[in-house]
Amino acid sequence: MTLSWNRYGKARVRLVKVLKARPAHELVDLTIDVQLEGGFGPVYDGDNTLCVATDTMKNTVYAFARLFPIDHAEAFASRLADHFIDKTAVSKVRVSTSEHPWTRLADHAFVQPGGEQWTSVVTREAVGTTVVSGLANLVVLKTTDSAFSGYPRDEYTTLPYTEDRIFATAVTASWTYRSGFTAFAARSAIRAALVETFAAHQSRSVQHTMKAMGEAALRASSDITGITLTMPNRHHLLVDLQPFGLDNPNEVFVATDQPYGLIEGTFRR
Amino acid sequence: MTLSWNRYGKARVRLVKVLKARPAHELVDLTIDVQLEGGFGPVYDGDNTLCVATDTMKNTVYAFARLFPIDHAEAFASRLADHFIDKTAVSKVRVSTSEHPWTRLADHAFVQPGGEQWTSVVTREAVGTTVVSGLANLVVLKTTDSAFSGYPRDEYTTLPYTEDRIFATAVTASWTYRSGFTAFAARSAIRAALVETFAAHQSRSVQHTMKAMGEAALRASSDITGITLTMPNRHHLLVDLQPFGLDNPNEVFVATDQPYGLIEGTFRR
Amino acid sequence: MTLSWNRYGKARVRLVKVLKARPAHELVDLTIDVQLEGGFGPVYDGDNTLCVATDTMKNTVYAFARLFPIDHAEAFASRLADHFIDKTAVSKVRVSTSEHPWTRLADHAFVQPGGEQWTSVVTREAVGTTVVSGLANLVVLKTTDSAFSGYPRDEYTTLPYTEDRIFATAVTASWTYRSGFTAFAARSAIRAALVETFAAHQSRSVQHTMKAMGEAALRASSDITGITLTMPNRHHLLVDLQPFGLDNPNEVFVATDQPYGLIEGTFRR
Amino acid sequence: MTLSWNRYGKARVRLVKVLKARPAHELVDLTIDVQLEGGFGPVYDGDNTLCVATDTMKNTVYAFARLFPIDHAEAFASRLADHFIDKTAVSKVRVSTSEHPWTRLADHAFVQPGGEQWTSVVTREAVGTTVVSGLANLVVLKTTDSAFSGYPRDEYTTLPYTEDRIFATAVTASWTYRSGFTAFAARSAIRAALVETFAAHQSRSVQHTMKAMGEAALRASSDITGITLTMPNRHHLLVDLQPFGLDNPNEVFVATDQPYGLIEGTFRR
Repeated sequence: MTLSWNRYGKARVRLVKVLKARPAHELVDLTIDVQLEGGFGPVYDGDNTLCVATDTMKNTVYAFARLFPIDHAEAFASRLADHFIDKTAVSKVRVSTSEHPWTRLADHAFVQPGGEQWTSVVTREAVGTTVVSGLANLVVLKTTDSAFSGYPRDEYTTLPYTEDRIFATAVTASWTYRSGFTAFAARSAIRAALVETFAAHQSRSVQHTMKAMGEAALRASSDITGITLTMPNRHHLLVDLQPFGLDNPNEVFVATDQPYGLIEGTFRR
Repeated sequence: MTLSWNRYGKARVRLVKVLKARPAHELVDLTIDVQLEGGFGPVYDGDNTLCVATDTMKNTVYAFARLFPIDHAEAFASRLADHFIDKTAVSKVRVSTSEHPWTRLADHAFVQPGGEQWTSVVTREAVGTTVVSGLANLVVLKTTDSAFSGYPRDEYTTLPYTEDRIFATAVTASWTYRSGFTAFAARSAIRAALVETFAAHQSRSVQHTMKAMGEAALRASSDITGITLTMPNRHHLLVDLQPFGLDNPNEVFVATDQPYGLIEGTFRR
Repeated sequence: MTLSWNRYGKARVRLVKVLKARPAHELVDLTIDVQLEGGFGPVYDGDNTLCVATDTMKNTVYAFARLFPIDHAEAFASRLADHFIDKTAVSKVRVSTSEHPWTRLADHAFVQPGGEQWTSVVTREAVGTTVVSGLANLVVLKTTDSAFSGYPRDEYTTLPYTEDRIFATAVTASWTYRSGFTAFAARSAIRAALVETFAAHQSRSVQHTMKAMGEAALRASSDITGITLTMPNRHHLLVDLQPFGLDNPNEVFVATDQPYGLIEGTFRR
Repeated sequence: MTLSWNRYGKARVRLVKVLKARPAHELVDLTIDVQLEGGFGPVYDGDNTLCVATDTMKNTVYAFARLFPIDHAEAFASRLADHFIDKTAVSKVRVSTSEHPWTRLADHAFVQPGGEQWTSVVTREAVGTTVVSGLANLVVLKTTDSAFSGYPRDEYTTLPYTEDRIFATAVTASWTYRSGFTAFAARSAIRAALVETFAAHQSRSVQHTMKAMGEAALRASSDITGITLTMPNRHHLLVDLQPFGLDNPNEVFVATDQPYGLIEGTFRR
């Protein structure tokens, strides 16, 4: 039996880089795969001498994100490819990127178009009809003006206080219209209030910003009696670049899917 | 043992309605759930006399979509709720809607924001580097200017020829830059060419429009040597409303996920 | 510009075939893709004379499922490939199948292993603890002993009464243990009661079987005070083969994802 | 405006615990949510004094997994709930668990039933037919007999060498039958060879085990000419419990989805 073809690498390295050089921050959101081909036969026999660890590939992506600009994903991928082609046994490097575009809301805030849905639940009983409208999967992110500190520390607390973190969430909102109301175009003003408040708020916590958003929504339409907000905290973890002799001034992050904080609240007049 | 609570209904009824009254068509894209509560105890004992079939609920949604305007999902849901509250045994109707927003491209064409990704694959070998860029999940739909007729008919053909159908797809494109090219902002012009051609084309088939899109992309950037396009045909089936005494002048459709046509082509200079 | 490569076809044709020749029914569950390559250049110029419609491919799959046995997916795919290779312009046919295995529960009932999860929700307040256990995504199917008839017919009803249909669902169950109970291995007996009752029941409706399952669960463990069941009706639609001169004696079905019936009930002592 | 209801917590904490006390290891695989309700109004005003960090909740889950047995998820959830009910301001704790069952293959190896699919690709050209069969999403895990060491260390390498790690993967395999072969039941022997070899192998790397699996498959059926295997490395990260004064003797892991190693190889006679 012969090994007639082989390839290996690290898939789905999630990289978010924030550029804060100018007042309007820039955001790059990439998922990157690094794959190597070459003379790796000995690895298949149990000898790892030539086997660049896929964990090292991942680290290299994050270190390069600090060392080099990412004007275009293609150029950044080329840098990575040039690095790995020099490793022993490697004959071919394939770096694939998938960029997730964001649209600017403000200097420090972005919305990710797509996936957003506009919802409604109409409940009809003999006594009448209740209309709850809402939206789901409104994905927003702010690159600064978000802190989380002062929380209690017990024997299982390791998270350091921070005055500056990324705050990313997928807002689900549902609001109840007063009985008989039918001017459902109010959705537009409520959505705008939610988004603008998220962008402008000096956040001390997800809860803190949620309340400001709820207040803004209730101000935006006098025809709603209450609003429920659900906001997962999509954690963006600051990558520890110290092992590579690099600092990380709130610039290079790994976007994580799970676990996530989950904050829910209902606000009524 | 007692039945202490019950609810039933039809979930995820997919409804697309096209309004062609004005030159700029309007598009409404909804997923609807209808759920009933009430005195349905006998159904749980095997007596279906009171059990409005969930298939009937689905039919009612499509018939109402023809009979009534859908200015707001909430108002349409209320109409449905008012209809079902009158059925025997029903004490509560819950109609939930989820609207999938589209953005207008042209009078008869739309793009669904979100989910779109910008891709690249950089391949590095001793001899040099190849850069293939692309995009994935660019979801577009045209409400007219799409025909499919003249295809061969054999013993298993039932599809009627049509001169007017919805054409919806999620474009995946990947194009190869000429060696050494690094002005990767070309992506923007290529994307625009694809979208504009899709919107303007008088389509005889998915393949026909694909070729026009490929040609437009190659014209948009003289620095690409070829482009591969993959375009699933996301079928929107015209609902047969005749059993309800209604016509359906290309207005009420069911959006389907599977099966789907899948068309692929590579175009080179 | 030249069309340097092309391929097209129908993707994700869902086929379920039931063989009832012997007392122990057999079940084949396949997702099939048919793809053609060849001299289809004219199609890309708007001439469909050579373009076998993908809808025809789908029809052919279902007709062949009635005409021929499906002992192995590979052999069935080969038959389809042999059929399409004879079409004008076709130089290559690719038929891909994905088989979804089921495990037999009884002569007419099956469970689809996998995806099942065992759930619990523990709620702690000052006054004490409540434990609700359950399971999710228990996928089961019966090939007979399921009817649905006698329901009311109104102006939007088209579904014919049936005394024999496929009944497929993904059971979600959650039951509440009496206060202080901690022998959580009871889950096993409750699960067995649900599955065995589903398999053996002469079903008049989803609700009818749900109640029998709820009763069985309450009998299986005297330590639970109630059980809530959620059972989507995963419709398997009988394919109309008449256009091809074939009958369909409850043998060839298309498995659908949406819309689906959704039945919920809570049963308490 | 009043905050009329609130809840917050950590969602989707992935916990895998391996018990090695007996020769036959035991495996518990849970996804856990912790949610608190109570007098958290000040948090919504920007005062975090009462706000148990959701990161602390996550840490507590992992520490408790080391401190206490997990005979039943319900009992483990109750312990967690009892811990959090004592925190200031908390009036209600909700701990939800979802257990992902595994089936034992051997003392140290498990398979996760479900999701597995049996695939085939039949390609028909004028010259004849090629049949490639396979399987996808065969999820297996071994709790020991897996090492990864001796790989090169460069400036971006941080992963420590290990002689004992969890090895989890979702095998995709596709094998080519010799021309004219039609005894497709061979799939069964090939699948068994893959699974048994995975379970028994003393692994120095994913590649090392992949080759053994490929050899076993080729031995299992003399009618296949080659096999391609794709094996993602679903990393299970050892949780660092030192901050809580606890060791972690390869017992408590976090299961991660991304990034993942991805190993591919083709083996031919």
